[in-house]
Order: sequence, then structure tokens, then C-alpha cells
Amino acid sequence: MPVALPSKMIAVGFDSPGGPEVLAPREIAVPAPGPGEVLVKVAFAGVNRPDVVQRQGHYPPPPGASPIPGLEIAGEAVALGDGVDASLLGQTVCALVTGGGYAEYCLAHAAHCLPVPESLPLDQAAALPETLLTVWHNVFERGWATAGETILVHGGTSGIGTMATMLGKLFGLDVIVTCGGPEKCARALEIGAAHAIDYRASDFVAEVQRITRGRGVQLVLDMVAGDYVPRNLKCLAEDGRHVTIAVQGGARAELNMAVIMARRYTLTGSTLRPRPAEFKALLVQEVATNAWPLVISGELRPIMDKRFALAEAAAAHARMEAGEHIGKIVLEV
Amino acid sequence: MPVALPSKMIAVGFDSPGGPEVLAPREIAVPAPGPGEVLVKVAFAGVNRPDVVQRQGHYPPPPGASPIPGLEIAGEAVALGDGVDASLLGQTVCALVTGGGYAEYCLAHAAHCLPVPESLPLDQAAALPETLLTVWHNVFERGWATAGETILVHGGTSGIGTMATMLGKLFGLDVIVTCGGPEKCARALEIGAAHAIDYRASDFVAEVQRITRGRGVQLVLDMVAGDYVPRNLKCLAEDGRHVTIAVQGGARAELNMAVIMARRYTLTGSTLRPRPAEFKALLVQEVATNAWPLVISGELRPIMDKRFALAEAAAAHARMEAGEHIGKIVLEV
Repeated sequence: MPVALPSKMIAVGFDSPGGPEVLAPREIAVPAPGPGEVLVKVAFAGVNRPDVVQRQGHYPPPPGASPIPGLEIAGEAVALGDGVDASLLGQTVCALVTGGGYAEYCLAHAAHCLPVPESLPLDQAAALPETLLTVWHNVFERGWATAGETILVHGGTSGIGTMATMLGKLFGLDVIVTCGGPEKCARALEIGAAHAIDYRASDFVAEVQRITRGRGVQLVLDMVAGDYVPRNLKCLAEDGRHVTIAVQGGARAELNMAVIMARRYTLTGSTLRPRPAEFKALLVQEVATNAWPLVISGELRPIMDKRFALAEAAAAHARMEAGEHIGKIVLEV
Repeated sequence: MPVALPSKMIAVGFDSPGGPEVLAPREIAVPAPGPGEVLVKVAFAGVNRPDVVQRQGHYPPPPGASPIPGLEIAGEAVALGDGVDASLLGQTVCALVTGGGYAEYCLAHAAHCLPVPESLPLDQAAALPETLLTVWHNVFERGWATAGETILVHGGTSGIGTMATMLGKLFGLDVIVTCGGPEKCARALEIGAAHAIDYRASDFVAEVQRITRGRGVQLVLDMVAGDYVPRNLKCLAEDGRHVTIAVQGGARAELNMAVIMARRYTLTGSTLRPRPAEFKALLVQEVATNAWPLVISGELRPIMDKRFALAEAAAAHARMEAGEHIGKIVLEV
């Protein structure tokens, strides 16, 4: 049943870019859902690397998006805009949003929501949309991964890395990950990686060649860029694909175009947030059809790191920046 | 009817890499067709840039290929190997070959032959396979070009450039080419380019942006590489593709991976010669179905530069290296 909504709410934002300490609660207006939109009373909000980069001032919100960070939420649909199916009211959903997740209430496109099954705790539901949609699009759509292929994923214990490992394994891929240190490698293997390479202890190019007996991998999912790119290409089999989803090691890369040509490599990449609502709706539909049944059945669940209260968002960011986390960090609202 | 075949023939090859002058006629054995192969009595052989690079010592023949240059031929099928349809004997064909074209007789896979229609002169037939198959694969298959898109092609008056212009126009693309000098630009426009940019007189990036009103092109077909690559990317619209088919300006390129990611570019490339016979057979079939009807009807004909006698192959190479040619150079056997 509809409930009376407050006009004001607490959200966590920042006035000027800076360290985690710039994040602070403030009181702002509860937004009103426009056509096709849903107002969600947020129970949990996922914390993602782009939130950190946004807070640092290097990833401004796209036009029309909330300046408040937060790209994924879970909670109850408490108000609907024009054109939204009335049955959504009162439903528990998780959603990909263009911003505004670090708040008590957040707007989402109805077409960007996924239904939360009874068996799925809300903190886990909030941890799924961004990584699941990002991995699905970049590994299967953009990277054309198919069962039987081998994929190299950097950041094996990150939110993206753990999702790529689990989703890849469920869809028949052999996933090789890189991680920093033996503990993270051990955890990555538990999560489902076929092989975990400690990049601090060994050269990942040599290790990938050893593991694949010189054949190389069919796909690299890369969030490092910089000098990793030429090294990644040395890990690729002929016709291999290289998909960039972040540039944490610097954007500039020197490539040998003769190698790209002779070995028929394909390099591409994408970011999810600035894409049109129509694209995201199609992607959500694709994931709802192909991956969400695995969430409902319990075969696919996010690896959870730690919960922080909304007001402790700064501590959550500090943890992500320190690289201490394994899996997803969420904020409890 | 089968004719008595000589055991020896004249072919043009070289003992050590070097300038055009290393090319010289020599007498070698007429090869015998193996299973699935056809022996063609060569009337004309096309001259291609890879022949020049091979002669310079930078593009060795793939395993099993003839050391004699020449990647495309036209002539009469005079002997058939096991498993080849007997009706091919005596037919006039043109073919993509892995080498050996600069000779009186040359082996071709039967599946790599295309029938030469009555209306097509043999010199033109010999000028088609390499560029037609290369352009088809890289523009339409690898580059996903579709009607209504705009494509930037460097080397607008080269064999590849003229074929890309004509084939692109026939399939609904707007083709922008770059050429060196006003005469070549004028000729490129006659051949069918929508726009021709004199790269000596103006910055092609600024010109492409002007021509496309800031929208950019959907595809770049590049044979330059080196410092052209970052400039090419500045010509690309979002979701644009960049296909490398040669690295005449040097292989090394410095790229901004954040741009590839944020604008969802795709960079790929290919070489045709080392690919498996099965792949080439599929590609020939694809071209036979989709482009060869335009050759038969006369709508698609190669732009011919100059004929040289087989013994004058050195002069043909010198002309190509000087960049004086417009369209295809062929050797008359």
C-alpha cells in the first residue's frame, strides 16, 4: 500500500572532490518519479569503483543524473510515475541507477529494476545490478565469450572480478584471475576461478602462457589499462578479444598494430552509466532472461565484503581505495 | 580440353630480399595440383603491396606457400587435382592464391576460384580477388559496415582504396578517402568517393569533422597505423570501428584506452594470406554470393593502373613503391 512520503531525506554527497572525508550526509528533497520512473525506499546501496572516481572528481555524473553517488540499490517501490505498471507498487526490487543511490530514497527507471526473490537478502540484491550488468555486457555481448573459452580477469577479488568469476564459471568459461597476494588468490579459487595468479609474486603473462600451455586466453576483461594492455595482448590467443572497463593503471597504452592485425585481436570497452535508458532497459531484459534465473535458484549470489551504515560512506570508500575488500561493499540505509 | 603441360615454366622470384631489382625470371618446375587444387595457366597476375613487403624481406610466405610472389591470378584451369569437379577443366577463372602468381602456371584451391564472366577482361579479373576479398572481409565482416554509414579510407587511389570506394558506394556507404595531392583526390571522386581529402594540404581529422559536421565516421579502414591511429580515433563517432589491414606508417601506436572505453570503439584488423584454406573458401563463397553478381553485371570493375610484362615485375614494384599508381597494377604473362 502507498505510504505517506516525507518531503525531505538524508543523502550522502560531497561539495568538492577530494578524499573519502568529503562524503557527508545532508538533507535534500525526496525526488518525485517522472514518467516511467519508480521511487525506491532504499534498504541498501552498493558501493562501486566509479563512485570513488566520481568523488575524486574524475567521473562527473552524466547530464540529468543525480550528483549524489550510488549506482545500484535495493528496496521497496513506494511511488510510481506515469506509465509504470501499478503492480510494481510495494514490490521489493533492485535497480541500476544513474546516481543517487547513497540516500533514503532513489529514483529508478521501472525498466532498470529486477524483482528481488524471497530467498535473496536485500544487501545482496543491492550488490548485484552494477556488476552483473557490467560483466554480462562486457564479457558476453561485447567480448563474445562462449562456453569452453578461457578468460583472464584482473582484480579477481573485486566486485567485478568475483562476479566475472562466478558468472563465467556458470556459463562454461575457464576463468583465470590475477589478485594481489596469496590470501586473495586462495579466496578467488574458492569463489570459482580455475586459476589465480598472484601478480605480486609472478609475471602474469608467463603464468597465463604456462596455464594455457602456450595457447593463450580468448578474452581479457581489463580494468587496469596502462602498461597492462601490451602485457594482456601477450596473453591472448589468435582472434582474442580485449575489453576495457576501467583504467585504474592509467589510460595511455602503447600498442603494436601489426600484432593486432596479424593475430586478429579485437580491442573494445565500455562504460555503463552514460548509456541511454533504452540500452540499459534492453540489457536488464537480457540479464533478467539469462542470468536472473540463476539468482532466483540461488546458484548465483554476490560475494559480500562488508556493510557500512549510510553515514559511514567515507569509511566504505576508504576500504575500497585501500584494496582491502573481497567482493562487494554495501551501505545500509 | 586438357593440353600437354610443359614440365618447366618461367616464374619471377628473388634469392635475397632487396629493392625491385632483385626480382628476376627463373626457370622452375610446373607444380602439380594436389587434392582440391587447380593448376591455372596464368594470363595475368595482380601486383599487391604485400608482394612488395615480401620482396623487402618483411612478410615471409606462410608455411607451405610458394616463395614466388603473387597473390591473385586469372587464366585457364588446365589441370585438376583429386576431388575437383571435372567441369572446371578449361574454365577461365580468377583466384586468390597464397603465392606463386608471378609465373606461367600457378596452383589455386578450387574453392578459392571465381568464374570469370565473358564480359570481364582477364587483366581486370586478375586485379579483383585480393582487394575484393580483403575489402569485403574487413569492411563488412570485421568492420560491420552497413548501409547509411560513413567510412574513412586512407590510400584512396590504391588498389584497396579504389575497391573500398566502389564496393562501399555500391553497398550504401558514404566513403571519405585521403589521397596525396589534388590529382589523386579528383580521381578518387570520379571513382565514387563522397569526399576526398588531400592529406598533404590539410589535416584529415579536421576535414573529417567538418565533412561529418562533428559526428565522425562509423568505420576507419586503415593501412597506415603508427601516428595515424590516434588521429583516426579522433575521426570516429561513438561505437566506431577501426580496422587495420597494413602498417605502412609503422606498427607502434599510442592509444588512450579511456577514450576507447568511453566512446565504445572497437579496434581490430586482419591479414588474409596466412588464414586457413577453409576460411578463404567461406570468404570466397560469401563474395561469390554478394559481390560477384555486381562484377558479372558490370557495376563493379577494378580501377586499372598499368600493365607490365611478367619479366618487368621489377618496374611494376618500383611504380607501386613510388606511389604513382592509381588502382591496380597487373603483370601480363
